[in-house]
Amino acid sequence: MRPDGRASDELRSIQIQPDFIIHPEGSVLISVGKTKVICNASIEDRVPPFLRGHKKGWVTAEYAMLPRATPERNMRESTKGKVTGRTMEIQRLIGRSLRSVVDLEAMGERTLWIDCDVIQADGGTRTASITGAFVASVLAFKHALKKKQINRMPIGSYLAATSVGIHPIYGPLLDLCYKEDSTTNVDMNIVMNGRDEFIEIQGTGEEATFSEEDLARLLSLAKKGIHELIEAEKSILGDLVIEQKVGTNK
Amino acid sequence: MRPDGRASDELRSIQIQPDFIIHPEGSVLISVGKTKVICNASIEDRVPPFLRGHKKGWVTAEYAMLPRATPERNMRESTKGKVTGRTMEIQRLIGRSLRSVVDLEAMGERTLWIDCDVIQADGGTRTASITGAFVASVLAFKHALKKKQINRMPIGSYLAATSVGIHPIYGPLLDLCYKEDSTTNVDMNIVMNGRDEFIEIQGTGEEATFSEEDLARLLSLAKKGIHELIEAEKSILGDLVIEQKVGTNK
Amino acid sequence: MRPDGRASDELRSIQIQPDFIIHPEGSVLISVGKTKVICNASIEDRVPPFLRGHKKGWVTAEYAMLPRATPERNMRESTKGKVTGRTMEIQRLIGRSLRSVVDLEAMGERTLWIDCDVIQADGGTRTASITGAFVASVLAFKHALKKKQINRMPIGSYLAATSVGIHPIYGPLLDLCYKEDSTTNVDMNIVMNGRDEFIEIQGTGEEATFSEEDLARLLSLAKKGIHELIEAEKSILGDLVIEQKVGTNK
Amino acid sequence: MRPDGRASDELRSIQIQPDFIIHPEGSVLISVGKTKVICNASIEDRVPPFLRGHKKGWVTAEYAMLPRATPERNMRESTKGKVTGRTMEIQRLIGRSLRSVVDLEAMGERTLWIDCDVIQADGGTRTASITGAFVASVLAFKHALKKKQINRMPIGSYLAATSVGIHPIYGPLLDLCYKEDSTTNVDMNIVMNGRDEFIEIQGTGEEATFSEEDLARLLSLAKKGIHELIEAEKSILGDLVIEQKVGTNK
Amino acid sequence: MRPDGRASDELRSIQIQPDFIIHPEGSVLISVGKTKVICNASIEDRVPPFLRGHKKGWVTAEYAMLPRATPERNMRESTKGKVTGRTMEIQRLIGRSLRSVVDLEAMGERTLWIDCDVIQADGGTRTASITGAFVASVLAFKHALKKKQINRMPIGSYLAATSVGIHPIYGPLLDLCYKEDSTTNVDMNIVMNGRDEFIEIQGTGEEATFSEEDLARLLSLAKKGIHELIEAEKSILGDLVIEQKVGTNK
Amino acid sequence: MRPDGRASDELRSIQIQPDFIIHPEGSVLISVGKTKVICNASIEDRVPPFLRGHKKGWVTAEYAMLPRATPERNMRESTKGKVTGRTMEIQRLIGRSLRSVVDLEAMGERTLWIDCDVIQADGGTRTASITGAFVASVLAFKHALKKKQINRMPIGSYLAATSVGIHPIYGPLLDLCYKEDSTTNVDMNIVMNGRDEFIEIQGTGEEATFSEEDLARLLSLAKKGIHELIEAEKSILGDLVIEQKVGTNK
Repeated sequence: MRPDGRASDELRSIQIQPDFIIHPEGSVLISVGKTKVICNASIEDRVPPFLRGHKKGWVTAEYAMLPRATPERNMRESTKGKVTGRTMEIQRLIGRSLRSVVDLEAMGERTLWIDCDVIQADGGTRTASITGAFVASVLAFKHALKKKQINRMPIGSYLAATSVGIHPIYGPLLDLCYKEDSTTNVDMNIVMNGRDEFIEIQGTGEEATFSEEDLARLLSLAKKGIHELIEAEKSILGDLVIEQKVGTNK
Repeated sequence: MRPDGRASDELRSIQIQPDFIIHPEGSVLISVGKTKVICNASIEDRVPPFLRGHKKGWVTAEYAMLPRATPERNMRESTKGKVTGRTMEIQRLIGRSLRSVVDLEAMGERTLWIDCDVIQADGGTRTASITGAFVASVLAFKHALKKKQINRMPIGSYLAATSVGIHPIYGPLLDLCYKEDSTTNVDMNIVMNGRDEFIEIQGTGEEATFSEEDLARLLSLAKKGIHELIEAEKSILGDLVIEQKVGTNK
Repeated sequence: MRPDGRASDELRSIQIQPDFIIHPEGSVLISVGKTKVICNASIEDRVPPFLRGHKKGWVTAEYAMLPRATPERNMRESTKGKVTGRTMEIQRLIGRSLRSVVDLEAMGERTLWIDCDVIQADGGTRTASITGAFVASVLAFKHALKKKQINRMPIGSYLAATSVGIHPIYGPLLDLCYKEDSTTNVDMNIVMNGRDEFIEIQGTGEEATFSEEDLARLLSLAKKGIHELIEAEKSILGDLVIEQKVGTNK
Repeated sequence: MRPDGRASDELRSIQIQPDFIIHPEGSVLISVGKTKVICNASIEDRVPPFLRGHKKGWVTAEYAMLPRATPERNMRESTKGKVTGRTMEIQRLIGRSLRSVVDLEAMGERTLWIDCDVIQADGGTRTASITGAFVASVLAFKHALKKKQINRMPIGSYLAATSVGIHPIYGPLLDLCYKEDSTTNVDMNIVMNGRDEFIEIQGTGEEATFSEEDLARLLSLAKKGIHELIEAEKSILGDLVIEQKVGTNK
Repeated sequence: MRPDGRASDELRSIQIQPDFIIHPEGSVLISVGKTKVICNASIEDRVPPFLRGHKKGWVTAEYAMLPRATPERNMRESTKGKVTGRTMEIQRLIGRSLRSVVDLEAMGERTLWIDCDVIQADGGTRTASITGAFVASVLAFKHALKKKQINRMPIGSYLAATSVGIHPIYGPLLDLCYKEDSTTNVDMNIVMNGRDEFIEIQGTGEEATFSEEDLARLLSLAKKGIHELIEAEKSILGDLVIEQKVGTNK
Repeated sequence: MRPDGRASDELRSIQIQPDFIIHPEGSVLISVGKTKVICNASIEDRVPPFLRGHKKGWVTAEYAMLPRATPERNMRESTKGKVTGRTMEIQRLIGRSLRSVVDLEAMGERTLWIDCDVIQADGGTRTASITGAFVASVLAFKHALKKKQINRMPIGSYLAATSVGIHPIYGPLLDLCYKEDSTTNVDMNIVMNGRDEFIEIQGTGEEATFSEEDLARLLSLAKKGIHELIEAEKSILGDLVIEQKVGTNK
């Protein structure tokens, strides 16, 4: 029995509150159990210098935690004067994941800025950020469609992420909360699209290892969770996103 | 007539939601009109090196804005690698204001960390932060009382802050929203305690000036607003705070 | 009786030595008692990017202390790799104060750089910096007039600053030296122009408070001191500055 | 046919030159095709503060490239004043991978510093670094055994890493060189130990996706490559490492 | 004929004003022609960690220029967030030069901090800094003798520095002003003690070269200048310094 | 007898391995005894902003050490977030030295980047860097000639550097290894060109001094060493460099 009574293949309760902040083009507050992340998507009418004149857009992400998102207060990265390795790794992951479903050419020479700010953390902040960022991005592009900045939705698939892991006693688990995450040997973050394709697999067994059979069981759990997350996204986004291979994807 | 239909001596709608985040000892979401600030207060069982062994505590504050708290996206200070002058000025102001009502000796050798994170900005973020930080601090000390870390509430007065300014046409106004703030000549932030005493007066007339009469009118408006803010605080805090000169105050 | 024998409404001895350094367009050494600040004003033939093409100039200030301006040696900010909050607050104050009397349009697309370097500190370095910076700025514009870069003095008023405070025994005092400043409860910096108008009031009662009556007495002391400071400025600047509302002031 | 004539399941030529630099406790130059990395392992007789008194050691890694390891010169990170996200991600990966085979308790309160400096890059620098760092670490512990700092080899398994990817025309490939890496859709780095267990799987399909079947084929290729890399390690290390579950591994 | 009418072996006018700033233990304003440097020497009752318990002191120097010490305004190093290579080179030179005449053991476990702040520059700022820093240091130790912190003057020789160079037309010159320095091919800074011994020779012929004969002529000019500088020092310091090999010198 | 059995005027064994790294335009590994430096020279088709449009090139150098180039591990400068004073001093010296033999106009608007990375240190790393950088630079220009980017070799002289010092017992020594360097009183780095002219003399006697006779003996030793180093360069470079005064040299 898991600490919060869930079955091993059960997601935590998901809430996605759209239009959470008034200023961004797209904004959601996503709650996955006690983990809460404000995901804002901004559209800027220019691209970084290396892309100017290429008639395509760019997608980039930033991630941060409030100092008391966690049980112990963490020093702000602005006070430290630098961004930690963990933060950079997460924001690179969010950016790559989103770019896998965005048709950069259909965006025009614009940048989609994604800001994921964790206000309360209980494990799985990076996967909640990806799921929330996806919804915020669709809402931002919906706003751009309405303003006729673009003429079609430049997103070609649903996208969601979750974590899975192997507990020393209970075995493979879906959607780890912090307490589970800290006692679990193997930890894996999975990002998938709406066509059951993998975007990212990041599995690490620090001070532990895993076999091919373990891997198969974990991927199966993740797939189940991602199906449910995508259903939650669809209940908000309706038919804004239609599955199709987008132009810039190889 | 002000943009949002208020009278010149009318505050915006105030909401203070206690226990907003689960981890901090004290946490509120304060909304002043459309300005929304998460104020978390953390109690740490040690003091900075310069105070060790002095049998007294310390109060310090940090302030930040989410990148899309504002209509245009702002670069994160962690990405810039440094904290701006504006941020430092504000966090010094919040810290000084709180220290004016806290009995540092009654805290013991502990640090009260205040984190004010603006998630949505519409003018008056520094004064909303002070008001919210006050409530969060009382809640944090209430938590420390319950855990018997301290044996009496180390706060000796209510505390609240608001802004006032002089509009070129309508004259003196209370509680400026962003649109008013940007068209107003003189801008003043006032911090007062529950005994009608001033803690801070910061009045600046960039590209404008003000007379002694102007000053008197502005202070009178501010006093009215602060009375109402303190009523809002009392509706949440009940009788947790009793007005009295605290030990370390000169 | 104050430590140096002054009356409560008496300024320290003021000396303003013009043309102190040969390279800047305007340069003074200002001494206010034992506080000594080199104030240099430089005119640069361009403006920051955000003002380009707006046909107006910019005024910005920097402030620093030599490591041994103080009784204990302070680490250089260049060695620390960053500017402290106190320094930023002071340089923002100096810049805002000067901008209140400068007609930015009359400057043309130029930047007035003000550098205040405290070589010896005994309290009141920020107010001495403002007073010295004002004189250096007028001298710099005089130089620009002579070189026909501009065709009229773009300064529309005299400007000076002083500090006032409330001593626990002697009550309100004008122009605090360091020893007084460190034992005084309430500390206020006042900037005024030559027409008895306020530019800035920054009053703070860290670990203390003040009433409206206190405030009135402090402002009256400050006004007296600023009148005398402006007389000292006039003895150097003669009729270079004529009181008038300048164009860019609201 | 691959650019360098290899079969799809063929590693590039591997050379591991032990004792490359005279000062470190363990030092190798590893060449994987044209990719060359100096891997130095240093043993320091203390641990970071958070581990003091815990009677266990620590393993940490740093990674850098010479500016001309690449066809275009890259700016040094010391000149930039900060370490990039890519570098942090790689050094975290190297550190985690090594910790999976080291018995931290058997090390005593010591730190194993791993320095991977790429002097020539042609793809696969992070996986070559892990393989080289493993050999350097075993050599460093051999040195510590000889000096009687420790009394048994604190490494419980072989460890090696390689990359695999899916080419749009030729399909799954083992050990990508730079030219292949830049034209391949899906890129995966795999770290395994000497018992066919996974330590890390990092698969990313930026602007592409992959199916479960793709994944199975890639893992099979990786396993073949890692077997061969471990053979190369064994030819240098002889019987220094004996496969066994080590103490601190969960 | 040199720009300022000097003979080729003639120093500029030297003035050394002792007790320039009131707070430091030793303080001078040195003027060498139009070059003016405030040299402050501070004695701190502790040494850096690497020297603790070694019963000897330390001497370290910092150097900076005011932004308008030069004809064009220079950005502050605190604003840049880092100290330039030129500054570091100069402060290392000043520190090494002073250490060559100080008996570190006779200082006790104390640090002599030397701060050289150029307020007006016209060439030769680093050599003026060394000469001024020497006088400030002797005054600081005189102060420590008076306070009985030390029981003898820990300085064993006079010390002074000057620059020499080769002008394309006029040949070798002593004590280059800025205009000469910028048109001279070979530039050499020489530091000598009161016994005609060299402490430092730093000769550089950027975009030029020099022969052994050139070198001999330059050293001879430098020696003449340094004799005169030491006479100027003696007129201030009287018999405070007695020539003798000091203990810690090899 | 010196630690390694050399005569006092004997260089250590010199090896210069050309084309060490495949990517740079010029690349050598220079070994001077146990000191080993990778010297890469890169030609970039643009100049820094201050030189644009001047129809001449630029030469700049960077220097670093691997953390375990030394017996004790040194922290990386990228991890520290800044370049030390020692590094800056060395890279300025390398850059100046190279510029003394390069005809900047003959380069066209190009930058020659020199990267000296010490992989193993045993004294004399800066002089080995200069000698190695010279060879790498000639090779880089040879490559540019072959690609017809330039039409003649823009280097007008050979260039080499060595160190000399005075040992307390054995007197003047040529080419100090680390053990000698740390026990020697006076340390001097000499850079000369192929016409027996000095480029740089940097002599320092920290905690020691030297006389004119000492200087003469040291320069004579250095000259002998540099003749031999230039012979080693010639054996690699053949007749690529012809001695002649180059255009931009004064």
